[in-house]
Amino acid sequence: MLGNNLTGYDDTIVALATAPGIGAIAVIRLNGTKAIDICNSLFPAKDLHQQAGHTLHFGSIVDRGRTIDEVVVSLYKAPRSYTGEEIVEISCHGSPYIQQQIIDACIHAGARMAKPGEYTLRAFLNGKLDLTQAESVADLIASNSAASHQTAMQQMRGGFSKELYSLREQLISFSALIELELDFSQEDVEFADRTQLYRLINEANEVVQHLVDSFRMGNVIKNGVNTAIVGKPNAGKSTLLNTLLNENRAIVSDIAGTTRDTIEEVLNIQGVLFRLIDTAGIRESADVIESIGVQKTMEKIREAGVVLYLFDVNETSLSELQAQVDTFVNEGINYLLIGNKTDINGLAAMQEKFATVEGILYISAKQHEHIQELKDRLVQKVMSGDINTEDTIVTNARHYAALQEVLKALQDVRFGLDSQLPGDLLSLDIRRCLHYLGEITGQITNEDQLDFIFSKFCIGK
Amino acid sequence: MLGNNLTGYDDTIVALATAPGIGAIAVIRLNGTKAIDICNSLFPAKDLHQQAGHTLHFGSIVDRGRTIDEVVVSLYKAPRSYTGEEIVEISCHGSPYIQQQIIDACIHAGARMAKPGEYTLRAFLNGKLDLTQAESVADLIASNSAASHQTAMQQMRGGFSKELYSLREQLISFSALIELELDFSQEDVEFADRTQLYRLINEANEVVQHLVDSFRMGNVIKNGVNTAIVGKPNAGKSTLLNTLLNENRAIVSDIAGTTRDTIEEVLNIQGVLFRLIDTAGIRESADVIESIGVQKTMEKIREAGVVLYLFDVNETSLSELQAQVDTFVNEGINYLLIGNKTDINGLAAMQEKFATVEGILYISAKQHEHIQELKDRLVQKVMSGDINTEDTIVTNARHYAALQEVLKALQDVRFGLDSQLPGDLLSLDIRRCLHYLGEITGQITNEDQLDFIFSKFCIGK
Repeated sequence: MLGNNLTGYDDTIVALATAPGIGAIAVIRLNGTKAIDICNSLFPAKDLHQQAGHTLHFGSIVDRGRTIDEVVVSLYKAPRSYTGEEIVEISCHGSPYIQQQIIDACIHAGARMAKPGEYTLRAFLNGKLDLTQAESVADLIASNSAASHQTAMQQMRGGFSKELYSLREQLISFSALIELELDFSQEDVEFADRTQLYRLINEANEVVQHLVDSFRMGNVIKNGVNTAIVGKPNAGKSTLLNTLLNENRAIVSDIAGTTRDTIEEVLNIQGVLFRLIDTAGIRESADVIESIGVQKTMEKIREAGVVLYLFDVNETSLSELQAQVDTFVNEGINYLLIGNKTDINGLAAMQEKFATVEGILYISAKQHEHIQELKDRLVQKVMSGDINTEDTIVTNARHYAALQEVLKALQDVRFGLDSQLPGDLLSLDIRRCLHYLGEITGQITNEDQLDFIFSKFCIGK
Repeated sequence: MLGNNLTGYDDTIVALATAPGIGAIAVIRLNGTKAIDICNSLFPAKDLHQQAGHTLHFGSIVDRGRTIDEVVVSLYKAPRSYTGEEIVEISCHGSPYIQQQIIDACIHAGARMAKPGEYTLRAFLNGKLDLTQAESVADLIASNSAASHQTAMQQMRGGFSKELYSLREQLISFSALIELELDFSQEDVEFADRTQLYRLINEANEVVQHLVDSFRMGNVIKNGVNTAIVGKPNAGKSTLLNTLLNENRAIVSDIAGTTRDTIEEVLNIQGVLFRLIDTAGIRESADVIESIGVQKTMEKIREAGVVLYLFDVNETSLSELQAQVDTFVNEGINYLLIGNKTDINGLAAMQEKFATVEGILYISAKQHEHIQELKDRLVQKVMSGDINTEDTIVTNARHYAALQEVLKALQDVRFGLDSQLPGDLLSLDIRRCLHYLGEITGQITNEDQLDFIFSKFCIGK
């Protein structure tokens, strides 16, 4: 467990909990053993110590004789709160000036400014959340699509931890048995059934491998996919881009105050965000991206998770297309072939023309034909199978790294069993497994790691 | 009173109440007769109808089978709420995606999106606030200095209305007496004591005149003062600007997320905001503003509430300075003469050199000498006397316009008394007084006016 030096555990912390800027209201959150005392000293309306938890109280905030605002105070008494400590939330008028004045008053009355993620860190240290759950809180706040939101929710509600806990418990009991053998090492006994251990290791391997594999999808869900639309001039890139963007914008645009610019080039398809690379070039002039051979375009293609290669079915020869496909295959590029302008010479003739090339999707960007199929294919290209948010999906690079270590240790245990290694060596590898599993859920932690994790949170959470 | 068409009085409205964007938490506010029903349909944890008002409830928001977030619900039961109606506030994780999903869920469950200021409009229509108090809520949220905050608070707590109410009541009783006379007009009786009325009118005149006069200060408090620093090249404008800005920035800069750019050129001195005009020019090159004679500089000077005229005491001749002062006086400009660079030839010699010119403040911007005096003078220039936020100060242009009408009507009543006009004519003028007083506090309203007032609010308030 952690020392007090990391957290200033006995301190009472204060921060703005709502988004900065002007709103109708803002919420300032006090947390810690003196939260109620501090608020009491600024809130003459009533003695909050005399009030029940989970109640709301109207009154004024008065700092050294000066009335700052009329507020509503939300009272949470330990341990029934987010952090497990006393929490007082002050809902004030949403002026940045007032927010600052109230925070200043709280600090003057004995609170200190919270560090990023410090509320959630305390919730973790007080056993209200495990580490994966705590991390998911930041993911949940940052979530901007249905899929990223659902995986974060699933993780916050403990879905991920549950799988690991049961694995860890089974490994712990085996580890105990093997270590018991060591005490009787002169007597050549085996308390731990090797066959059963072998089965457990295989099971564990399968579970962890599945989780490791899910990270590719998890990363797509959490961060979106860099997507490039490329093709020769006049292939119809600009038309396709507009068709896609007009039909399907990222959802966040509906909330007042979010800037359109930042989301303009993001497509939200079935809850996956496709980040369109360098679409400015496509918009401004179809000629900017000269041809697929150009150096700059190749760079763009290499940084893309998926490339939409658009060609004019009427102007492109079979040999030309085949050469392009060969390039993609040689370069190991994840591509989607889109034959555009099928409305001019008819679909059937074109399908015949390119019959030897596999996987072409024929569309007419201008006529909005087969755009839905294009979207479906795009999702299929980046997701192995459907997104099932009921599944546990690893979205966190830290978890991914730890799981890979678990996998290595499991393979070492299996190798040790195969080679009939003695119990003490097996035990070391099992302990390595347990260590990395424990690091994920936070049963094993160190201060640097916690500092790193919670520093990525916003202040006030 | 207003018809339902203006407000959709029976509707339940929903909006984000906190600032848009990402925060640790966000608050979504449901208000109206179905607020509890709608929240109940999304909140399986418990039946909120069975819970007491002013309580907090933890649970999940589930929309059509999909869990959106874990939230805390604040419950306010009518009439003990801000609007006097049922209010449910949902505190969710501060992701814009989640905010939008919860608002969408509320709308799907029967709420509609709130219009700007609609919560406060309802509070007004339900008699929770009078109109000046309602208007002060918007001012309070927009307040960005100690002075603007204090005047808005004073007004929100009813300070302004109180003065007008008592005036209006007295006028009403006189009006009633005079109108009673009209019923007995054949009998030549006087129920209303003319001497007493005269005294009341004089008193009212004084109060209203005082309020009208306070608007100049109120406007300064609410909107700040456009301030120009002008002077010849090398007078030291750039140095002075940096000295002022470095020592004394607007307070709002301390809150995370507020943009530095927007406040960089605002000085907060004794709670008054001085908005520095065209400082970019001063910063980039001292030569941009060629001399005081240049057309562009004169335009800048005319739009300024106060001009800091900075001159180099060593390089400026007495006749030159005198000519400049004459120009300011002729143009009716509110100016402050600042003699800079006193550190070179000594203060005494310079004071002697310019002894015939009044009101020069001698400073050394480079040595930070007498900068505090400069600030004090600046505040004195724009405020008549100290800012006493205990006084009632008119900050609202609508109130100012109405008060001027009251003043005119009062003068007409006095003229009528002086001319011994018959009661029916006096009564008309008194009624005009009452009308404009009532318009300020909202005892007399019309829909257009309310629409106009509340459309300036943010959504969610």
